[in-house]
Amino acid sequence: MPYNLWYWPGIQGRGEFVRLALEAGGIDYRDCARETGAEAMMQNMAGFARKPFAPPYLEIDGFAIAQVANILMYLGERHHLAPSNMADRLWLHQVELTIADMVAEAHNVHHPVGGGLYYDDQKAEAARAAEQFRSERMPKFLNHFERAITANEGDWLIDHRWTYTDCSLFQLVEGLRYMFPERMQTLEKDIPNLIRLHDLVADLPGMKAYLNSDRRLAFNEEGIFRHYHELDAA
Amino acid sequence: MPYNLWYWPGIQGRGEFVRLALEAGGIDYRDCARETGAEAMMQNMAGFARKPFAPPYLEIDGFAIAQVANILMYLGERHHLAPSNMADRLWLHQVELTIADMVAEAHNVHHPVGGGLYYDDQKAEAARAAEQFRSERMPKFLNHFERAITANEGDWLIDHRWTYTDCSLFQLVEGLRYMFPERMQTLEKDIPNLIRLHDLVADLPGMKAYLNSDRRLAFNEEGIFRHYHELDAA
Repeated sequence: MPYNLWYWPGIQGRGEFVRLALEAGGIDYRDCARETGAEAMMQNMAGFARKPFAPPYLEIDGFAIAQVANILMYLGERHHLAPSNMADRLWLHQVELTIADMVAEAHNVHHPVGGGLYYDDQKAEAARAAEQFRSERMPKFLNHFERAITANEGDWLIDHRWTYTDCSLFQLVEGLRYMFPERMQTLEKDIPNLIRLHDLVADLPGMKAYLNSDRRLAFNEEGIFRHYHELDAA
Repeated sequence: MPYNLWYWPGIQGRGEFVRLALEAGGIDYRDCARETGAEAMMQNMAGFARKPFAPPYLEIDGFAIAQVANILMYLGERHHLAPSNMADRLWLHQVELTIADMVAEAHNVHHPVGGGLYYDDQKAEAARAAEQFRSERMPKFLNHFERAITANEGDWLIDHRWTYTDCSLFQLVEGLRYMFPERMQTLEKDIPNLIRLHDLVADLPGMKAYLNSDRRLAFNEEGIFRHYHELDAA
């Protein structure tokens, strides 16, 4: 039986991190809200006693698993998209949570005052936040991931095979390239292992098929990674 | 052998969520950086092949477990501070990650432009961010936690005993009361179950002893929950 994945239709957003693991792993799923709409998702979500705070969530046997890193940890254990020993599992989850932190900070760049207001209502604040993010946070996070990969002897984050966190690192690079093309051009020379890993993930059979399908939406200015030219700089 | 916990000395910060679980659970630990200082922590952290992105982290058998929710999940499984069936474990971790999201947003209130700048350099932006946080985010998060508790028949988040996430909910209420005393006075009438749970946690023997000890630092304006009068309102 396919998994029921629920996430906002129309954007990649946080749901994309879950989709990529499912697609790369060849795991069957329905992208429910793309079939039924956001309204139906809100109704579905409200029905759980243990209601998620927000999409994305995976509906399984009458309960909902929410929070991207939590969903991925579940899928990783259940579908062998992660190693099974404790130290490796915890390390993978740790890196995944750090990716989630960077994603939240990237969103904060265009919505520093709050997600409830439009970008146009916080452009001045966003310009300052973007400057800080580009100069301080991007190198710090990206160098951390670079070092994490370098700590492993194989091509991937752990051992000699891909895990769900490798898929998330791919998506992080994709999103940052879309959001900050100029800045990434400067920074990518310092993160060769992360870029190589990105390319390896893009080449996984399941991933390749997905990226070439119409299931992969384009980035846009409704999602987390948004391109506003005025927020980018080399 | 006691655990080695590493976190910035001088503040409660994110480390406090780990401390509370350790203290409530009667688990022996050393608060290393309080003995050796921040400089020694930076050196220790740099020594791991799998280096954490940031404190807090727990040093175990030569590797480091970082990210608060990850550390707590580990302690929960190892020391029975959490139920063992899958659905409950995932739910607990999910709520913990949502607490982490709210903590990050609370920090963002006084540092909307970036953590690398002083509050004084972003007071105008902070005033706007605080207004959004008070009006939109605080009710949304707090009502979510209230509903999560109400979904359980017992007094706690799950079953009839406390878990590490109950300790984190206690700390969240403590921090928000310190940061937004006026706003919390307004909101607390809508979250009776969360407040009751907060009081129950405060009354756990291990917790009570800790809160009355000098190991429990006071909140201050170097931490995550900071009281700036101008950012609060009923």
